[in-house]
Order: sequence, then structure tokens, then C-alpha cells
Amino acid sequence: MKLLEDRIVKDGKVKGTQILRVDSFLNHQMDIELFGEMAKEFKRLFEGEGINKILTIEASGIGIACIAAQTFGVPVVFAKKSPSKNLPDNIYSTKVESFTHGNIYDVMVSRQFLNKDDRILIIDDFLANGAALDGLISIVKDAGAHLCGVGIAVEKAFQPGGSRLRESGIRIESLARVASMSEEDGVTFVTE
Amino acid sequence: MKLLEDRIVKDGKVKGTQILRVDSFLNHQMDIELFGEMAKEFKRLFEGEGINKILTIEASGIGIACIAAQTFGVPVVFAKKSPSKNLPDNIYSTKVESFTHGNIYDVMVSRQFLNKDDRILIIDDFLANGAALDGLISIVKDAGAHLCGVGIAVEKAFQPGGSRLRESGIRIESLARVASMSEEDGVTFVTE
Repeated sequence: MKLLEDRIVKDGKVKGTQILRVDSFLNHQMDIELFGEMAKEFKRLFEGEGINKILTIEASGIGIACIAAQTFGVPVVFAKKSPSKNLPDNIYSTKVESFTHGNIYDVMVSRQFLNKDDRILIIDDFLANGAALDGLISIVKDAGAHLCGVGIAVEKAFQPGGSRLRESGIRIESLARVASMSEEDGVTFVTE
Repeated sequence: MKLLEDRIVKDGKVKGTQILRVDSFLNHQMDIELFGEMAKEFKRLFEGEGINKILTIEASGIGIACIAAQTFGVPVVFAKKSPSKNLPDNIYSTKVESFTHGNIYDVMVSRQFLNKDDRILIIDDFLANGAALDGLISIVKDAGAHLCGVGIAVEKAFQPGGSRLRESGIRIESLARVASMSEEDGVTFVTE
């Protein structure tokens, strides 16, 4: 999606070759007008899939998921991150390893809000190693729901998550796919 | 706001006299259509205030804030919660005590995204003791920004936060103000 790629080039901050900061418009300050355009693109991509619920994970996926949910006319469920203690009953949960923070946390969704009749679109802001996404996919499977696909804002395509998950048969649509980046040369994108 | 009050009566779950669970439509599963109606009400209440940015706090305030931001045509900044270590430079931060979780955490906003020219509307899902709100207000003051007011979905009006903050001169608009609740008698609301 050219609009998002252009915005990354304009306002993204590259540190080294691995870190892309997009906190001025995507995951700290959020440009809701941009989210509206991204939502239309998700709708175009997943139209006709019969999606009845969007699943995301706190915190930075929630904004994009909510604006996207408007275009689909469906509710959002956000998975909660929790330190691994005192998990309540009646939840789906799975462990996720954070490469960013170097820890392991539990991700959970109340059983009340996911079931076998659901047709789920997962939405998140970033895809890199895919650990958080693995957790969400595992929860969808546990619930017996149908995973229609995954919508991502920014994929670091030079990290393995996207390729691995696509090879496993999951439909992943990333609005911007970063091929490489460096402080000297900026960001390049995967061209179709 | 009658629509929200009716929804709380219909789908809220009261535990004892202090806990109101609204996770089927407000803060785990999110009814985006309801959020749209709440957003219109916030717009009506704060129209003409020249608001240029909405500030909220992760995680459950983000959805309501984003949908509200659409009606105002402004961006959202969400404050991040962080364990009290390794805070980055160039942030506004303050400590908040959580009554729910019995701990103290730091709340932070990058200095880049709040400044003295901003006219801020704070949005959050719940107001009870007002600790998180105190933190957000403190950050707005640190930034030298103008606080136009606070929009809350559900206020537990039998807890002291709302009264205390209104007495300090802050405009707080809560769409549903719970006067009392019990498992036997359900929820009653403050009538104007």
C-alpha cells in the first residue's frame, strides 16, 4: 500500500538494520485518518470472507483493529498479555516469547468471546518473527474458530515470521513489506 | 447516555458491590458500533473546544479513543505503562498506583507527541479512584498543554475519583455514572 510505504519513508526512523520506529503515526501517536485508509485496504483484501470478528493483541494492535472493524461492521476482541501467574478460568491462553523484551508472557482471550462459529481476521501492527501471531493463531485453533487470514500494517520481510506462516498455509496480507533498511540508505520495500 | 446505561444493565456483570465487568462490549470484546455512538456523544459534549489531540492510556482506552478521534478528525496518543526500570529519555512520565492490581507502574508519553500548543481531550474507559487519570493529567501539565476535558465511558460515581477531580476544576464527562450496584439489585445510575 503506497500510502503507508510513503509514510514510513517520510516519518519512520531507522536504527541500525533491525529497528524501525513508526511511533509518530502507528504505535504511540496514531494517525487515525491513515488508519481509515488502511482499514479500506483490509476490507478490499478480505471482502467476501464472511469475517464476523477481528482479533488483535494489546496494545498497539487495538487502534488499527478498531478502525478496520468499522469497515467490516464487526466487533473486535483483543488478547491480553499477562505475567504468567493467576490466570483466570475460562480462557484460551498460550505462551509467547518476546524478542523485543527478552521475556515470556501469557496471551489470553476469554472463552466467552471466541467459538467454533467465528470467522476470524487477525490484525496487528507489526510482523517480524511472528511470535505474537503464533500465539493468536494458536488461540483461534483452540477455540475451533475459522481463521480467514491475517492483516498486518508493517512486515519486516527480512525476518522469518511472514515466510514461515505463509508456508504453513495461512493467508497473510501486509500493507507494507520492508525488504531491508539501514540508517544510510533508509527503507526499501518488497515489490510484488 | 441511555444507550450505554441500557447496555450495562443488559450485559454488565456485577460482582459484589465494587466490581462491574463490561468485557463483553467495552474492554475485552469491543462493540465498535456502540463506540461509534459514544464517539458522537463525546463530539457533541466537547464540540467547539478546539481539541487537536486525544490522549488515552493502554490498553482498554485505545479503542474508544480511536473511534472518538475519527469524529474529531484528530490523532490519538496513548500513554504506555511500563515497569519502573529503564525508562527511555525524552519522555514525560509519572507513577500510578493500581488499586486493581495492587502495584505501582510508570506511565509515559514521548515528549515528541505532546507540547504546549496542544489542546487535549483525555479519553478512558473507566473512572473509579482516578489514579490513572491523575497520571495522564500530570503528563498534560508537564507538557504545558491545555486540558480541555476528560471523556469517560463508565464512572463508578460511588468511588472518589470523579468528585475529587471535578472539585479541582477539571471538566469530566462520563457517559454512564454508576451510583450503586449489587448482585441482587443490579446497577443504578446517577440521575442529573
